Amino acid sequence: MSITGLLLLFYVLNIWMDFSVTILGSNAAKPTMRRFSSAQVLQTGENLHLIDCAEGTQIQMERFHLKFSLVKTIFISHLHGDHVFGLPGLLSTFSMLERTAALDLYAPPPLENWLNGLLKYFPPLSYPLHIHPLTHNEPTVIHENKQMTVTAFPLKHRVATFAYLFREKEKPLNIRKDMIDFYRIPLREIVAIKAGSDFTDNDGKTIPNERLVFPPIKPRSYAYCSDTAYLPAITNILHNTDLLYHEATFADDNSERAVATFHSTARQAAQIALDSQVEKLIIGHFSSRYDDISVILREAQAVFPNTEAAEDGKVFRLPEITKRRNE
Amino acid sequence: MSITGLLLLFYVLNIWMDFSVTILGSNAAKPTMRRFSSAQVLQTGENLHLIDCAEGTQIQMERFHLKFSLVKTIFISHLHGDHVFGLPGLLSTFSMLERTAALDLYAPPPLENWLNGLLKYFPPLSYPLHIHPLTHNEPTVIHENKQMTVTAFPLKHRVATFAYLFREKEKPLNIRKDMIDFYRIPLREIVAIKAGSDFTDNDGKTIPNERLVFPPIKPRSYAYCSDTAYLPAITNILHNTDLLYHEATFADDNSERAVATFHSTARQAAQIALDSQVEKLIIGHFSSRYDDISVILREAQAVFPNTEAAEDGKVFRLPEITKRRNE
Repeated sequence: MSITGLLLLFYVLNIWMDFSVTILGSNAAKPTMRRFSSAQVLQTGENLHLIDCAEGTQIQMERFHLKFSLVKTIFISHLHGDHVFGLPGLLSTFSMLERTAALDLYAPPPLENWLNGLLKYFPPLSYPLHIHPLTHNEPTVIHENKQMTVTAFPLKHRVATFAYLFREKEKPLNIRKDMIDFYRIPLREIVAIKAGSDFTDNDGKTIPNERLVFPPIKPRSYAYCSDTAYLPAITNILHNTDLLYHEATFADDNSERAVATFHSTARQAAQIALDSQVEKLIIGHFSSRYDDISVILREAQAVFPNTEAAEDGKVFRLPEITKRRNE
Repeated sequence: MSITGLLLLFYVLNIWMDFSVTILGSNAAKPTMRRFSSAQVLQTGENLHLIDCAEGTQIQMERFHLKFSLVKTIFISHLHGDHVFGLPGLLSTFSMLERTAALDLYAPPPLENWLNGLLKYFPPLSYPLHIHPLTHNEPTVIHENKQMTVTAFPLKHRVATFAYLFREKEKPLNIRKDMIDFYRIPLREIVAIKAGSDFTDNDGKTIPNERLVFPPIKPRSYAYCSDTAYLPAITNILHNTDLLYHEATFADDNSERAVATFHSTARQAAQIALDSQVEKLIIGHFSSRYDDISVILREAQAVFPNTEAAEDGKVFRLPEITKRRNE
């Protein structure tokens, strides 16, 4: 393949960079065979970002073919067992696999003491673990890489809890392969064209930029809100997010229990989605009281029709393609 | 049913009291979907005794229909992640289910600090957890109930590690239902007959005890030895045990690694079984280096033919009936 070909392949890959969420666990409180507790993986290109890490997360990652070596960052919502009890095992497994790359972990402050306190009984990890305690009262960009920013903001639960909003950065224009061939555009011009320049050929003829490029795909966004009581204030922050995961531990039949335990009902989760004008809502963190979660799902869909229920192994891909990972 | 009938039913149940081991995890180091890490349940009648508690133990218990409410004691071999990372989740789940019965947990001393250190970040457990640190250099009866004694003795591993030997107590003689009817034996005589007395009927005729009873079944025993380097000294303690679980992390092809990591090869595990004159050997704690553990199994069987490989969900019942639990 020529250098031009390689470059184009890179751009094409970049346009179609995977942006998908895989559900590893969808149950509240305690795991079952059918539904493990809270954990998800956001995949952006070749990077995996783990969001919460319940017991069995490493098992689910293997089950759903998510490579340990691609995990770049971990985001923990709060220090409740059903969101963190998989961390000791996963972090130890990274060591066993002789990871050397540093790992960034974001979480409310008590997690650092908890995790360091329990890990100190074992051999040191094979890689630097950087724990970043979150203490912000306002939405704050806590993490950034070439592709995206991650904003954390507080939720309302029995302990300090954060939501995470993952937002892709604006992408450059994409050059058209057929135009490169047609106008014999030299490699050195491509960066300028992608930045918006016109192209002047050997005969001095100027080709306008819009003829040479097609627009980048719209930056995609995903927000994870779990666990929380109904908190209408977050709709401003979530405004126009493509995909929202919001806990819906209960249906309306347990609304008093939802209030008492600082959880949301499906109707409340859907109201947040509606008021935030998101594209799509995923609900999860279902109470074990519900053998059949269809009552929860229907309640949400009555308010916000484009709602789907989380299932372990389900993948939500943006632009929207939903499928199950091969098992 | 008459009182005699009920009593007899009780005795029959007692004779046939379940004594079985269910494997919850059979892998070393890290869990996979096929093989979780070390955990087992010894069932004696209606009591469950958990032996080691790797990540996902609570999930496996549910999968294999082992009721949380029947767990009476927990025995932990040593403080390595692949033997204990399921404890926080399981103990929390007991609380969530509103357990109030005290729970006894036996383990080498560092476990107490580790566990208390990590549990203190969460609401107190709903039940008393009694942690018994084991510091014995010699085999010691550390636990006893009506049915059995549990003897702990040290193994040879990288950290303090204990083996556990579960041994049923001698059972009383079992009275024959047909003789009760035939000689019209009154209820009040039964305890004495079971203790070995003859019976004198209304006509003054004496019926010898051996005509009235059948002998109790032989007390059964099970030993759990994991993790350990080859340790021939334990064969004296294990002498005549019915069922022995001994780790066999490696086959001979990794014998140097076995020495370096204080683990056993399959041949060594089988040698322990042979020298201990046990009935049957289960090997487990297989290294993930082996996709197919048949090489490990064959190596053990060459030395001790009555060897079986642990598989998650496999049940070993004494007297010997091996089956898989329904999934």
